[in-house]
Amino acid sequence: MFQSFDSASDPTTAAARIAKLREWLAAHDLDGFLVPRSDEHQGEYVAPHSERLRWLTGFSGSAGVAIVLASRAFIFVDGRYQLQVREQVDLNIFTIESLIDNPPPSWIEDNLAKGARLGFDPWLHTVGDIAALTKAAEKAGPTLVPLDRNPIDEIWTDQPGPPAEPVEIHPIAFAGELAKDKLARLAETLTRKGASHAVLTDPSSIAWAFNIRGADVPHTPLALGFAILAADGTHRLFLDPKKLSRTVRAYLTQLAELRAPDALGADVIDLAKAGGKIALDPVLAAERLRALVADNGGTVISEPDPARLPRATKNQAEINGTRAAHRRDGAAVSKLLCWLDAQKPGSLDEIKVVTQLEGVRRRVGEETQMPLRDVSFDTIAGAGPNGAIMHYRVSRKTNRKLGQGELFLLDSGAQYQDGTTDITRTVPIGQPTEEMRERYTLVLKGLIAISTLRFPVGTRGSDIDAIARHALWQRGLDYAHGTGHGVGSYLAVHEGPQRIAKTGTEKLLEGMILSNEPGYYKEGHYGIRLENLILVTAAEPVPSGDLPMHRFETLTLAPFDRRLLRADMLTADELAWLNAYHARVLAEIGPMVDGETLKWLEQATAPIK
Amino acid sequence: MFQSFDSASDPTTAAARIAKLREWLAAHDLDGFLVPRSDEHQGEYVAPHSERLRWLTGFSGSAGVAIVLASRAFIFVDGRYQLQVREQVDLNIFTIESLIDNPPPSWIEDNLAKGARLGFDPWLHTVGDIAALTKAAEKAGPTLVPLDRNPIDEIWTDQPGPPAEPVEIHPIAFAGELAKDKLARLAETLTRKGASHAVLTDPSSIAWAFNIRGADVPHTPLALGFAILAADGTHRLFLDPKKLSRTVRAYLTQLAELRAPDALGADVIDLAKAGGKIALDPVLAAERLRALVADNGGTVISEPDPARLPRATKNQAEINGTRAAHRRDGAAVSKLLCWLDAQKPGSLDEIKVVTQLEGVRRRVGEETQMPLRDVSFDTIAGAGPNGAIMHYRVSRKTNRKLGQGELFLLDSGAQYQDGTTDITRTVPIGQPTEEMRERYTLVLKGLIAISTLRFPVGTRGSDIDAIARHALWQRGLDYAHGTGHGVGSYLAVHEGPQRIAKTGTEKLLEGMILSNEPGYYKEGHYGIRLENLILVTAAEPVPSGDLPMHRFETLTLAPFDRRLLRADMLTADELAWLNAYHARVLAEIGPMVDGETLKWLEQATAPIK
Repeated sequence: MFQSFDSASDPTTAAARIAKLREWLAAHDLDGFLVPRSDEHQGEYVAPHSERLRWLTGFSGSAGVAIVLASRAFIFVDGRYQLQVREQVDLNIFTIESLIDNPPPSWIEDNLAKGARLGFDPWLHTVGDIAALTKAAEKAGPTLVPLDRNPIDEIWTDQPGPPAEPVEIHPIAFAGELAKDKLARLAETLTRKGASHAVLTDPSSIAWAFNIRGADVPHTPLALGFAILAADGTHRLFLDPKKLSRTVRAYLTQLAELRAPDALGADVIDLAKAGGKIALDPVLAAERLRALVADNGGTVISEPDPARLPRATKNQAEINGTRAAHRRDGAAVSKLLCWLDAQKPGSLDEIKVVTQLEGVRRRVGEETQMPLRDVSFDTIAGAGPNGAIMHYRVSRKTNRKLGQGELFLLDSGAQYQDGTTDITRTVPIGQPTEEMRERYTLVLKGLIAISTLRFPVGTRGSDIDAIARHALWQRGLDYAHGTGHGVGSYLAVHEGPQRIAKTGTEKLLEGMILSNEPGYYKEGHYGIRLENLILVTAAEPVPSGDLPMHRFETLTLAPFDRRLLRADMLTADELAWLNAYHARVLAEIGPMVDGETLKWLEQATAPIK
Repeated sequence: MFQSFDSASDPTTAAARIAKLREWLAAHDLDGFLVPRSDEHQGEYVAPHSERLRWLTGFSGSAGVAIVLASRAFIFVDGRYQLQVREQVDLNIFTIESLIDNPPPSWIEDNLAKGARLGFDPWLHTVGDIAALTKAAEKAGPTLVPLDRNPIDEIWTDQPGPPAEPVEIHPIAFAGELAKDKLARLAETLTRKGASHAVLTDPSSIAWAFNIRGADVPHTPLALGFAILAADGTHRLFLDPKKLSRTVRAYLTQLAELRAPDALGADVIDLAKAGGKIALDPVLAAERLRALVADNGGTVISEPDPARLPRATKNQAEINGTRAAHRRDGAAVSKLLCWLDAQKPGSLDEIKVVTQLEGVRRRVGEETQMPLRDVSFDTIAGAGPNGAIMHYRVSRKTNRKLGQGELFLLDSGAQYQDGTTDITRTVPIGQPTEEMRERYTLVLKGLIAISTLRFPVGTRGSDIDAIARHALWQRGLDYAHGTGHGVGSYLAVHEGPQRIAKTGTEKLLEGMILSNEPGYYKEGHYGIRLENLILVTAAEPVPSGDLPMHRFETLTLAPFDRRLLRADMLTADELAWLNAYHARVLAEIGPMVDGETLKWLEQATAPIK
């Protein structure tokens, strides 16, 4: 299994660890220390080596930060983790704070006095984060102290080593563009921005630029490392040599000078001393890098990661790969949904379904000779009220039977070498209520509105987010998450900068892949979410239309549940889209399944009305 | 007439004036001078006294800036004025630049060398504008020199004096809240923001806060002046005493210390020297004010004008007034539309219609004892291709016959003491084409989508702009302007901060009035725009809806033209809205008209299908 169902977190270990940390702080003349969840690369997943927040506090969520003072300690989490954090941390030690309403910068203003010395590890915080903290500290009086060593690493005696999983070359058949050509494009960007160099700190950007993949963190095929790109083409790549086979080493040597990760600091200092103009992405790059440049005579150029937009706009090979991945994944999901319908009432629980789903994905991958490399995230399988918990992850403790008359929400994805998938379907267990059917149909109307939308070139994700909400809004309903996130190509399932959300200020460009996932959540009762991945394409011109337009091509292929559909609430155009989509699902997935599944698929995709 | 049809602008006067300005600059050791269109108050309209850009260059548009150097001169205008500027200025003297693509800050970087001295009048540029210019100048090398005297005022020998029209008290029946209560609310805001004072520079804010109106600029009932609000309640109001009758003076004396406008600078200096923390709105306040505070030991607090949101969220008296104004205005517009339909083909031109419209507005105002105070802006009356020019204003030179088979776009508004209106209708002259009818219907679908929308409390204007465009987008069409602007209560017809547009990042709050005006423009052929004013209200709860929602109440009352409607393109819900709206128009406007107009109105509002 790529997913575990442990909720292994022991609140009782924190007391001793916090005591040790406090000793260390006292010995080093510090009043407190900041412990973020992130590692040097600011990704969604971190290696066990970097699970410092979890080790210290017990909290295992994907976002959070702790501040440990001499006599008090605080842990900051967002709304989705308010319950979990209370189960995972020792409340005699930690006070819970809201990462949204009272994040560390505003907390510092109210809680730390003049003269207090708050330490932090400058590799684990971004330039932007530290700028905000510094501004707050200047108002309130405490001093932020960047540390050369992370105290957690000193007191964590059985800390796992940094990951060193093998790096593989991502074949040109899937990448679609040679790494040397990508690197040449990036070098041109640097010249245009007036930078001599850029430090890439996001392993997704390194994976994309060098056409490599790794296995250093769960669910995303990343090799943790850094790169320094140079406008003159003398690039450097900082990867642990243990990760590199002879073949991979020979390949990478043609693209860049290979350097050990711990050479990064010294190299940045050398470039800065030589007058380098070094581009750093303020929301990605470590504060330490900024300081190394600025303190050694270099110039920091604050620019977004230059690989960000090229990576987000997929080329034809990536698009073809992703289409194939979605056919394969659609076959697996169809098998799962068929199997689910055939089980005896009362016989299923969430973990059984997750296990079965990973099994069918593995089998379909083997049959099509494109094996499942990983799940793209821990499957969200929410029965009844668990479906209303937006970021639910099933554990043995929370595992719930799929009860009669309940809804079951299943949000999952796969990593194949040709593409990354992410799909959500919601199905009824037994007889759904009229309210469930009405709301399912409203959510589906939102998904169809995005699926059929045309929009002028230049439109941003934030401009169209409400299109998916319109039908729900008219009934006084909404959902408290964005409509869509960006998705990588055999990379991160949550990839920026593209996004369909109120905060999605990036223009939607041809080749971007996004999710289309409106939902509805009735707390304590049920959750509905429907998710297809979509690709931004040029819309074929409308006769006598004036403007170059974009539209979305739907990538995901699996039926929507007709038992939850109120066809009378759909317009003729909406119904036509649904029937055409189902016909396409049958045409593309049908040949990949047989027996019971094919029969099930034919019924599930039969024209409605 | 409140509107003139002159395009009086003589490009030949510029040569001598520019020569004089250059002499002055040379004598004062300056290499150039910045001439903005704005006055000290940054409003849409300026008094003749402040038409410096027009006097110097000939350009009469509502936005623009000139930069005059020793041997070259440049005028910056936006896209809508690209044609007009070429007719109005001497192209031997001026080079045209784009205010959007190459605004003065970026122009300065490319065009002015180190050491160059560029003068500007710091009363006519905002803090934010000068910050941007300074940043550009620091990169490129020239020095920005704030001047104590405006050179134009020195060389413009027959410059009109500053306006000194009488100030009137805005009755409590229309204002709905006593000025002393408003001022107390504003003082509280200052305390909350940590400010001892705020300088109000926007005459709309002064008019709102003190419940006064004036007549210093066209089409907006403003008294130009300043106020300094104090957290401790010791407010000061800077108005030319010539504007104040004994009654008005007695009234205002109860609210604030009355000061002459030229005392403002000295007063700000005194407050700064006493350690004042003075709030200035960076997008409204003159750079001079910032300098006076900062150079005299005061603290500048950069905060939006505190009256902005209270003014935008209308109270019940203002809402009732605005409803009455719209009934009155709807009666006038209905009379005009009835009259228009009855004219002999070929007998009308744009100016005739504008003149007739002002006449009916005057007559209806007199009949209802609420006289027309002004038009709220120069009526846009665009026949055929003129309708496609978004900011068209008819002059004797451009005046066009209403030709058979053409569309006629009429966008106009009125100022009554109880409210400000703004309405656009598009009508066919003779037989419209099928394309015109299709596109009219798409625009109407956009207007209906906003009219019927519910949206969660907290939604911003930018979140819903696309809702009005959806139907057009699906056919490859769009319009290049926002969907709606804020509207004042017997104040500016374009009032911030509320807006339905991609740039409308302000939350929509109960009591805000906005326009709802999607359009479609076919360059060289015709324009379609449909505009109603709408009011943000609490939506009645939907049975079993979860969230507090807002919706819009439509204020404007006049029929949409059924000859341009393709009813088959409307959904049942859209048609139901249109029929209900027309029924309401008949119910509310019917009793205010008679004879031919009533007959016309009954036909124009009869149920469709």
